[in-house]
Amino acid sequence: MTWTLAGRTRKMTSSAIRDLLKLTERPGIISFAGGLPSPKTFPVEAFAAACDRVLSVDGQGALQYATTEGLPALREAVAASLPWAVDPANVLITTGSQQGLDLAAKVLIDPGSPILVETPTYLGALQAFQPMEPTVVSVASDDGGIDVDDFAAKSAGARFAYLLPNFQNPTGRSMDESRRAALSAQAARCGVPLLEDNPYGELWFDSAPALPLTARDPENCIYMGSFSKVLAPGLRLGFVVAPPAIHQRLVMAKQASDLHSPSFNQRVVAEVLKDGFLDRHVPTIRALYKGQRDSMLAALAREMDGLGVQWNRPAGGMFLWARLPEGLSATELLPRAVEKGVAFVPGEPFYAGTPDPRTLRLSFVTASPEQIDRGTAALAAAVREALEARPAAARSSAAVAA
Amino acid sequence: MTWTLAGRTRKMTSSAIRDLLKLTERPGIISFAGGLPSPKTFPVEAFAAACDRVLSVDGQGALQYATTEGLPALREAVAASLPWAVDPANVLITTGSQQGLDLAAKVLIDPGSPILVETPTYLGALQAFQPMEPTVVSVASDDGGIDVDDFAAKSAGARFAYLLPNFQNPTGRSMDESRRAALSAQAARCGVPLLEDNPYGELWFDSAPALPLTARDPENCIYMGSFSKVLAPGLRLGFVVAPPAIHQRLVMAKQASDLHSPSFNQRVVAEVLKDGFLDRHVPTIRALYKGQRDSMLAALAREMDGLGVQWNRPAGGMFLWARLPEGLSATELLPRAVEKGVAFVPGEPFYAGTPDPRTLRLSFVTASPEQIDRGTAALAAAVREALEARPAAARSSAAVAA
Repeated sequence: MTWTLAGRTRKMTSSAIRDLLKLTERPGIISFAGGLPSPKTFPVEAFAAACDRVLSVDGQGALQYATTEGLPALREAVAASLPWAVDPANVLITTGSQQGLDLAAKVLIDPGSPILVETPTYLGALQAFQPMEPTVVSVASDDGGIDVDDFAAKSAGARFAYLLPNFQNPTGRSMDESRRAALSAQAARCGVPLLEDNPYGELWFDSAPALPLTARDPENCIYMGSFSKVLAPGLRLGFVVAPPAIHQRLVMAKQASDLHSPSFNQRVVAEVLKDGFLDRHVPTIRALYKGQRDSMLAALAREMDGLGVQWNRPAGGMFLWARLPEGLSATELLPRAVEKGVAFVPGEPFYAGTPDPRTLRLSFVTASPEQIDRGTAALAAAVREALEARPAAARSSAAVAA
Repeated sequence: MTWTLAGRTRKMTSSAIRDLLKLTERPGIISFAGGLPSPKTFPVEAFAAACDRVLSVDGQGALQYATTEGLPALREAVAASLPWAVDPANVLITTGSQQGLDLAAKVLIDPGSPILVETPTYLGALQAFQPMEPTVVSVASDDGGIDVDDFAAKSAGARFAYLLPNFQNPTGRSMDESRRAALSAQAARCGVPLLEDNPYGELWFDSAPALPLTARDPENCIYMGSFSKVLAPGLRLGFVVAPPAIHQRLVMAKQASDLHSPSFNQRVVAEVLKDGFLDRHVPTIRALYKGQRDSMLAALAREMDGLGVQWNRPAGGMFLWARLPEGLSATELLPRAVEKGVAFVPGEPFYAGTPDPRTLRLSFVTASPEQIDRGTAALAAAVREALEARPAAARSSAAVAA
């Protein structure tokens, strides 16, 4: 064997979810598993018109190399869209917000550096951080987000805390105003920078979420956003807002990683965004997803009655978080569910520390309401079957717990 | 200061070239500095038609998330285009071939790992490798490429050798058949994998280059290609061909880096490539660039007469390599040249080891023949002025050397 692999490859993992998705893409399976936005929300006609305009106005310019930082018009649009004073000079356009995570890891993590994450947290972030070999510290979290006292207790030496305050992936939960205020103050006291990831923030159902953490202390935060959920993921465009010294390092890391994000895509998105397009478009996504969430909540209430399954009621985003009764494992339930025609993602891979094997993530955005009804019924049937297959001892203790 | 930077950021540098380009983008400056293909070669109409078809046939699919490995049709087109038997399963579509370098570095370089490079070598590769903190070993090279004996002498423990066998950036030089055969055999004997970068291979002027190194020993090579020079760089699409075990690791590293390259761009390029488009298109680029090279060779012969400047005659690609007479420094010459209205890139940043300060890179593809004439005259005037400003001692020794 000629090849010697870098030590960090031992920390690299393929996404358990992506591998699962391959198994569950069989025809006929209703999938609550994917993290994909509904393709119905993609403004295909607006993109077609924008491609046409961009290529006819300055096709050669749109197809040429460009600056690493990103298209000035797009950086300005991003800065103007955020609810605090953002200098476009501090905005970096990235190849999806996933790249923002990769760049932040390169710039901020030494082997062994402690970093703090929520429990559970976004799997893709763990994957992006792992090649730089941090010590990932899982901070206790509840339905309102990260526990501020546990954050303080674990903060010593942390390079940053990674947070998804709005409609988190995987749990769908959000941090309210008082939790954000407390965390922001505690982070400043502890000297821990915050890496705030906000791909879902615009997808609120009844009222806009509280002000971002970054707005409260921009010098000590990196903010990441994405066009994947409000326009379309297939263009791979996201952005990072960081204080100047960090921005400059992120730019260097990006130049070495892919020179720049596609200039054509940046021009197309800048063109689509003109004239307040998102102000008209995003409310249609919110309305669609809210209806889908309500369908799933109704189906769960109807189908899971008496089974001891718990779930939350996300105020936005794409995901709902559920917990099976004691004695059941979501990973073990999955093959049984697929057999009955429905797929989901077990919660385990989202935990940096000890997983709760009873948890699972349900996406409510890609299946139709009718599929949600059938899929939830199939999931309930799988749970019922698994409960019956449990050893008698677990059955009686679960009955007490329920 | 809340932020602690990772140690690797000390190894990160912004491209000296990109910084220079900012200075030389003043209106009126004739630039031989850029590494940009001529925008005249971008098939804007073919792209417009392809965007239209892709969005009308399956717009939602084109804008959705996709697999990390890349679009099957594009992977098949890449495999079919290469002059050895390539399984599409071993092709990974990347966000420009720059990303291929970043991924290879993540997968193959531990801190301190020796890696071998040509003298000089592509600056962007050095930047991509440096965050993983290798020990970069500069192997002696001549007009025919890397020196095979020096390669063998320095090969102990090398994780790979990075090579640009066709119309190298920055020198424009190529490896001939006998050098390739010797290097391939030596690499196999020494157990050193080869990382073969081939963005310019299709841009030959009189005859196609010799068979790629990878074709001679696919199990011990990674091959990187790009659509940037034959179609357009603004789509940021390249590819990596690697043996299965390495391919699999590169896929994991890519998934963590940006999930996948833009699915829309991949579909558009696959659409453009249909029906042998490149077979008709690439010859027009070759003809254009060959004419530009000839203009520059003629201008250099005319303007540099008697100044002691040397240059080569690249058989393809975008760049020509020149060397100033003894006592002159290309870096010191640059401000004088810009003052006279012409820009180039000093050779220094392309050296991993001791630089030759007299070298410089001239791009012949973006300036028009008329600009090439004027720019070369301005460059000669700057050289003449610099020669006159030399101390008398250097002048007489240079006269002897010339």
